[in-house]
Amino acid sequence: MGKYRGSSKLLLQPKNTEEVSQILKYCNSRCLAVVPQGGNTGLVGGSVPVFDEVIINVGLMRNILSFDKVIVSGVLVCEAGCILENLISFLDDEGFIMPLDLGAKGSCQIGGNVSTNAGGLRLLRYGSLHGSVLGLEAVLANGTVLDMLGTLRKDNTGYDLKHLFIGSEGSLGIVTKVSILTPPKLSSVNIAFLACEDYTSCQKLLLEAKKKLGGILSAFEFLDSDAMSLVLKHLDGVRNPLPPSIHNFYILIETTGSNETFDKENLEAFLLHSVESGLVANGVLAQDINQASSFWHIREGLPEALMKAGAVYKYDLSLPLEKMYDLVEEMRVQIGPAAKVVAYGHLGDGNLHLNISAPAYDDNILAKIEPFVYEWTSKNRGSISAEHGLGLMKAAKIHYSKSPETVRLMIDFDYCVFELLPDTSCLDDNHSIICLCLSA
Amino acid sequence: MGKYRGSSKLLLQPKNTEEVSQILKYCNSRCLAVVPQGGNTGLVGGSVPVFDEVIINVGLMRNILSFDKVIVSGVLVCEAGCILENLISFLDDEGFIMPLDLGAKGSCQIGGNVSTNAGGLRLLRYGSLHGSVLGLEAVLANGTVLDMLGTLRKDNTGYDLKHLFIGSEGSLGIVTKVSILTPPKLSSVNIAFLACEDYTSCQKLLLEAKKKLGGILSAFEFLDSDAMSLVLKHLDGVRNPLPPSIHNFYILIETTGSNETFDKENLEAFLLHSVESGLVANGVLAQDINQASSFWHIREGLPEALMKAGAVYKYDLSLPLEKMYDLVEEMRVQIGPAAKVVAYGHLGDGNLHLNISAPAYDDNILAKIEPFVYEWTSKNRGSISAEHGLGLMKAAKIHYSKSPETVRLMIDFDYCVFELLPDTSCLDDNHSIICLCLSA
Repeated sequence: MGKYRGSSKLLLQPKNTEEVSQILKYCNSRCLAVVPQGGNTGLVGGSVPVFDEVIINVGLMRNILSFDKVIVSGVLVCEAGCILENLISFLDDEGFIMPLDLGAKGSCQIGGNVSTNAGGLRLLRYGSLHGSVLGLEAVLANGTVLDMLGTLRKDNTGYDLKHLFIGSEGSLGIVTKVSILTPPKLSSVNIAFLACEDYTSCQKLLLEAKKKLGGILSAFEFLDSDAMSLVLKHLDGVRNPLPPSIHNFYILIETTGSNETFDKENLEAFLLHSVESGLVANGVLAQDINQASSFWHIREGLPEALMKAGAVYKYDLSLPLEKMYDLVEEMRVQIGPAAKVVAYGHLGDGNLHLNISAPAYDDNILAKIEPFVYEWTSKNRGSISAEHGLGLMKAAKIHYSKSPETVRLMIDFDYCVFELLPDTSCLDDNHSIICLCLSA
Repeated sequence: MGKYRGSSKLLLQPKNTEEVSQILKYCNSRCLAVVPQGGNTGLVGGSVPVFDEVIINVGLMRNILSFDKVIVSGVLVCEAGCILENLISFLDDEGFIMPLDLGAKGSCQIGGNVSTNAGGLRLLRYGSLHGSVLGLEAVLANGTVLDMLGTLRKDNTGYDLKHLFIGSEGSLGIVTKVSILTPPKLSSVNIAFLACEDYTSCQKLLLEAKKKLGGILSAFEFLDSDAMSLVLKHLDGVRNPLPPSIHNFYILIETTGSNETFDKENLEAFLLHSVESGLVANGVLAQDINQASSFWHIREGLPEALMKAGAVYKYDLSLPLEKMYDLVEEMRVQIGPAAKVVAYGHLGDGNLHLNISAPAYDDNILAKIEPFVYEWTSKNRGSISAEHGLGLMKAAKIHYSKSPETVRLMIDFDYCVFELLPDTSCLDDNHSIICLCLSA
C-alpha cells in the first residue's frame, strides 16, 4: 500500500533452524535489531524494516517435512517459509485442504500466517489457527530453539505455549516450523449469492444459515451497496449477479459437504425459504464452477477495486454483530461527501473490513476517521484488529482493545522471553511489547 | 478414586471476582498456599488440598451473565462456578448447545473445564476450548484482575494471553468468568454402532468417516473387546448391540446435522459401503432415542464398570493414531495375567484411555506399568496427558511430553506472573510451574 518504507542494509536468508538460532544469538549479544519477514504481505507494516533492522527472511526454509495421509490424521508438518498456495496445491493432490485460505495465498508464507494468526475465508468453518495449529518450533531472541512441534490433537501437559507465538507477530520469537491439522477435501461445494434490503435481515439470515445449513456452512461473507458499485465500476468483466438494480446488502454463502445431491437440495431449500419469509430480496445459486468463481471474484476483488479507486484507509475490526453496521453509518455521517465509506467482510465471524475511499490521501480525511474509529470500536468492546494484527500501524493503539493489566502482563512476558530485566541497557525507552523487532 | 486425601482446615467460597481478588492478595502477602477448586471432578489430584492449603472454591459464583440469542452470535458469558449440565440445560431451551460435553457434567464447573482444558465427547466436532473460549477473566496471585472477557470471534491485538490460562490448572491464576461460543442445536442426531476385526480397519474407517460424513460427523469413539466384556459383566441392563459373539473392536459413530432425511440416508449409505468393503464386520443404526442412549451408555459407562471391577490404574494418552494400539498390546505382554488391560477412547482425536484393571492395588503391578507407559508414550512423541491434565499425579512427569527449553519458559512465565525472582523467599525448593497452589 506504499504506506511504509524500509531502509535495511542487510537481509539474511537462513536455510534452517540452526542458522536462525545463530543469527539471533549473535544479533542479541550485540544488541542489533532484527525484523523477521515471511511473504511480506501484511497490511500493517509489521515486516517492514522501518528503522535499520537486519531482515531475517525465512523464505528459503520451504520444505514439507511430513504429511500423514496413509493413516488418517491429515497432519502436515512443514517449514515456515512454505508459501500457502504451494501447501494448498500439495494437499489438493492428497485429497486434503488447508484450514485457512486468503487472498494473499500466492505469496504469503505459513510461518507468517501463524505469527499473525491469519484469519481469511475459512475461519467460519475451520476455526482460527489457535485450533488447527497442533505444534510449532520457534527460536527465541537469545537463540534458544523451542521444540513445541507436536502433532497431537490433545496434549494437556503444562502451559500451551504455542498459543503465545500464534499472533504475536514475531515479537516473541521466529516461527521456524509448523504442524497443522488439515481437513479432508470434501467433494461438494455450493455457492449462493443473495441480496438483503436491511442489515437486520443479514443478521437473521446468518442465524438461519447456522441452524439450517449446520455442518456444511463454510462461508458467510457480506458487502454493502457501495462495495458492489465499486467492484462493478473498477473491475473488468464483473457483472451484478442480481440485476437490474443495486440492493443494499449482498451475501455470499458457501457450503462444503460430502454429498452433492443432498447439499444442493439443502441450499436450494434454504434459499427458497429465505425468499418466502422475506429475509432475502433476491438470490441465485451458482450453476457451475465458472459462476461460482464469478461470485467469489466480487468479494475477493474488493481490495483491488479499492486500490484502483484511489487512496484507501483500511480498518479491520471485530464488532458485536448487532452493532457492526452502525459504525459504517456513523462513519458516513462523520466523513461527509469527502470520501466514500465501503463496507464488506466476514459477517459470519463478526469481522468488518471498513474502507474509506478517497481521490487522494488527505490529513483532513484521516483526522475525521482517527481516533473516531478506534474510540467507537473500543466503546463497543470490539477489536481494532480482527485479523491483520497490530504491526507498526496499530502497536501504540493496543489500549483500545486490551486492558492495562493485560498489556502489563504482555510486557512482563516479553521481558521474560528476552531474559531481560526492565532496567537493562539493551532496551530503549520506547520498548514496547508489540515492537517490530526482536531486540528493540 | 480415593487416591488423594485433602487436609485443609479452611474453605473459602467467594461470591464474586472482587472477593477472589481480596483473598488472593491477602494470601499472597502472607505466603499462604491456596488451592483453587471447582466441581472437584478431576482425575489427577489437581484440586485436592494435599498439604494444608486454603481452598478457594468458586461454586457460589454461578450466574449466567449474558446470552446473545436474539442476534446470532450464540455467545454465553457466565461465572466460573456454573455447573456444565446447568449450562447445557439453559442453552437447550434457547436452541443452542455447549461445545463440550463429558461424563462429569453433573458436577464439573465451567471454570474448572476451562482451567483444565477439558476435552470430552464433542471435541472431534467443535474443537478444543482453545477454539471455543472467546474470553475469560482471571485473578492473579497478587489479586490483579485480568479482564480478557471479550466476546469476539477474532481479535489480533497483542498476545492472546487467555490461552495460557486454558489448561494451566489454576497455577497461573483463578478463572472467574468465561465467555464461550456455543453452536446452534441441530435437529438431526444419528448413531451407529459398528464392529471391526482389526485396528487397521478402525483407522481406515475413521478416514472414510471424515471424508464421507464430512461436516456432520460429531463423534468417533472406540472400545476393544476387553472393554466390551467388562461393561457387559458389570453394568446392569447392558446388552451387546451386535450379538452373538464378541468382536475385537467396537466403534460408535455419531452424526449431527440439520436434515434428518439426508443425514440418516448418508449414515446408512456409509454403513452399507463399509460392510461391503470389508472394513466393518457388523453394524447397526440406532432406530430411536432409547437405542441411541443404550449405545452411548456402553461407551460412557466404562469408567463405572472399571470401578466396579476392582482397582484401576488410569492413563489418558495422546498417541499418533497408527501407534496407539501397539501400546495396548505391549502393555498386555508387559503385565501378564496379573491384570486386565482395557482400552477405549476418543479415536477421532487420537486419545486413548488406557486402563489396567486388577483385583486390588498392588505395587508390583504399578512397577510394571510405570515408567513403562510414560517412556513408551514419550518415545513415540505422544502426550502423557491428553485431556486430564497433570495435577499432582503427573506434575513431575512433564518432561516426558515437553522439552527442557519449553518447561524452562513455563517456569519463567510462572515467576513473571507471581512477580517473583527465582531467589525470593516465598518459594521453596520444590516450586514447580505445575504446582497445585498459587503461592507455593
